[in-house]
Amino acid sequence: MTRSWVPVPADSDFPVQNLPYGVFSLPGQEPRVGVAIGDFVLDVSRVGLPYASDLAARTLNPFMARGRTAWREVREALVRLLTDEAHRSAVEPHLILRDRVRMHLPFEVADYVDFYASEHHASNVGRIFRPGQEPLTPNWKHLPIGYHGRAGTVVVSGTPVVRPCGQRKAPDAPAPVFGPSARLDIEAEVGFVVGVPSEPGTPVPVSDFAEHVFGAVLVNDWSARDVQAWEYVPLGPFLGKSFATSVSPWVVPLDALEHARTAPPAPDPQPLPYLREDEPWGLDLQLEVELNGEVVSRPPFGQMYWTAAQQLAHMTVNGAHLRTGDLYASGTVSGPEPGQRGSFLELSWGGKEPVKLADGSTRSFLEDGDTVVIRAGAPGADGVRIGFGEVAGTVAPARTGQA
Amino acid sequence: MTRSWVPVPADSDFPVQNLPYGVFSLPGQEPRVGVAIGDFVLDVSRVGLPYASDLAARTLNPFMARGRTAWREVREALVRLLTDEAHRSAVEPHLILRDRVRMHLPFEVADYVDFYASEHHASNVGRIFRPGQEPLTPNWKHLPIGYHGRAGTVVVSGTPVVRPCGQRKAPDAPAPVFGPSARLDIEAEVGFVVGVPSEPGTPVPVSDFAEHVFGAVLVNDWSARDVQAWEYVPLGPFLGKSFATSVSPWVVPLDALEHARTAPPAPDPQPLPYLREDEPWGLDLQLEVELNGEVVSRPPFGQMYWTAAQQLAHMTVNGAHLRTGDLYASGTVSGPEPGQRGSFLELSWGGKEPVKLADGSTRSFLEDGDTVVIRAGAPGADGVRIGFGEVAGTVAPARTGQA
Repeated sequence: MTRSWVPVPADSDFPVQNLPYGVFSLPGQEPRVGVAIGDFVLDVSRVGLPYASDLAARTLNPFMARGRTAWREVREALVRLLTDEAHRSAVEPHLILRDRVRMHLPFEVADYVDFYASEHHASNVGRIFRPGQEPLTPNWKHLPIGYHGRAGTVVVSGTPVVRPCGQRKAPDAPAPVFGPSARLDIEAEVGFVVGVPSEPGTPVPVSDFAEHVFGAVLVNDWSARDVQAWEYVPLGPFLGKSFATSVSPWVVPLDALEHARTAPPAPDPQPLPYLREDEPWGLDLQLEVELNGEVVSRPPFGQMYWTAAQQLAHMTVNGAHLRTGDLYASGTVSGPEPGQRGSFLELSWGGKEPVKLADGSTRSFLEDGDTVVIRAGAPGADGVRIGFGEVAGTVAPARTGQA
Repeated sequence: MTRSWVPVPADSDFPVQNLPYGVFSLPGQEPRVGVAIGDFVLDVSRVGLPYASDLAARTLNPFMARGRTAWREVREALVRLLTDEAHRSAVEPHLILRDRVRMHLPFEVADYVDFYASEHHASNVGRIFRPGQEPLTPNWKHLPIGYHGRAGTVVVSGTPVVRPCGQRKAPDAPAPVFGPSARLDIEAEVGFVVGVPSEPGTPVPVSDFAEHVFGAVLVNDWSARDVQAWEYVPLGPFLGKSFATSVSPWVVPLDALEHARTAPPAPDPQPLPYLREDEPWGLDLQLEVELNGEVVSRPPFGQMYWTAAQQLAHMTVNGAHLRTGDLYASGTVSGPEPGQRGSFLELSWGGKEPVKLADGSTRSFLEDGDTVVIRAGAPGADGVRIGFGEVAGTVAPARTGQA
């Protein structure tokens, strides 16, 4: 078993089998790339690695654009530096305690796409938003449904989320009203970050997933359900989603997730050939959603119907090309059990069955001051658990403006 | 009446009352900002204007970010240079015939949003896609419906458009099939380009439109109707639109459009206060859609129900902020008459009434090799007509890949 000379607590998300990338800064210094190990950030542009100038950049984009051979070269060198005592004296001065650094958005987002890949989530939402109708639309099992979101409002974990204002209309009201959303929600998701661009006009096959995708992050796709319900027919979600999307600061490399690979649920019917995987990219990640310190849900990512490789193939099958920094998220991760639902919309069944909290209070949707933290863990190499760190956000009150 | 010493043909889109900005290059040279005048491009970073280093950039973004005072300062200086004979000898060497230059995408696109602001278009599409139902959804007259598109596939006029492949399903077929789109279409639109960013969390009121928006372009939002029809419920258009969106190379400054301002159709009902305009930003632009050299439609932009200022206010009312380079398009421009429809979907009524062309052939949707050109003109200062140039694209055959 590979062990680092850096002390790694037993329950750490960041053993040497993980080595996720982020962008950090110290007070008065420029942001640059770091790698998490135990309780530390390794200041990776200063330890003699290849591609050091890419690693000194303010975003991961230059390094992500280098491609898989470079990613592996640096990962292997990092493992050597962090496991071989011979390197300790040279490397140790570049370890910084994580609680001393500020973390930044790790990559510049090019396009942002959000999918809808959990059958349990899509069925729940269908039942809540379109009662009396078939919960899944007829296309759902033939293609991974997705839509473009707002890249400019993707923010790093810790950024406060201002409660959005917008239009909403009660089903029996004659006209909409304007005001702060009364149904502010989360969506617990996993996001995938593109490193290597593709050629305009040329689809990326499922088998090329790991050639293009650099790694994965946690995503909280904050959602104003009342705004969304009124606006989304016929062109999809817009202002109900575009005010903020939070991502975790650490991008877990695909190579660290090799041991988490699993087969997704058996497809029925078989999808079209361009969506078939020989070696499926389902991932056995276990998510946890925490509200004000209390775990309210444990969504299982391994139950997602469509994988990230299928989503990539679908997203490009019309010739749309990839750019470095493209982010695409899985859609809300929900499992079959009530305690595995990745949104309050589902946990409280549209507000009809409020969630009971440990302090005796209940919660249907988020209140001002609420803090939501999403975490995830996965099997790593050598039988160790690797983690994603967290994506956290606290709800700030609406800024009341004109209506 | 203001006249330039540069000879401007009577029917030119580019009299001195226009002065649109683009990005051009000469063989072997770097792209840089130019301004169109008559048959020429003025090489504006070399004529002693303020902000010359911004104007030497490869995109308009640095100059657009400067804000309205800078835009006006440069515009006024340009008018002086191009109208006062005293400057002729210094400026004339920097005029380059337009047919000698290559035009580039004029700005780096941050986020791209597409609206749906023509009542005639939305009603037509409703009747075609959802026959037997109320053509406008209940929200349509309360808010400008919009959605995010793919910023990475916005291309400059002249870029070939490869026919996309995708899934489609006939209403009575048991399952979808994969292949080249059989219903490739256009959408004739007008796009607005954001120069000045806004603060995260802070809505931009309708009255601040001209503080943020730099100018307007023509947009062709290419659409694969068969792909779109199968995929778009419930999260909106995705692959049916994301393969290509073409824009004209010249960005017409808002200041050149002051004389085109007009009131949009009277709203019924009155919208919520945040969408009310004191001095409306309807624009009397007359569009022309040409298929293979023959005008097939003349959509009137002045008939749009929602204005660009209302769209900007709506897009930001939830606190989503603007970035330099944000592009938002009007949605298909269609008037009340059959000869004013901005898409073949409407012109051929879903393929049921093919368009008759001058050569005796008919067209429901686009064929390989078809060239579509969209133009527009508007009233400018001094009673002259100003033009937008054109957005052109030719359909290239699908690249048949795996299915």
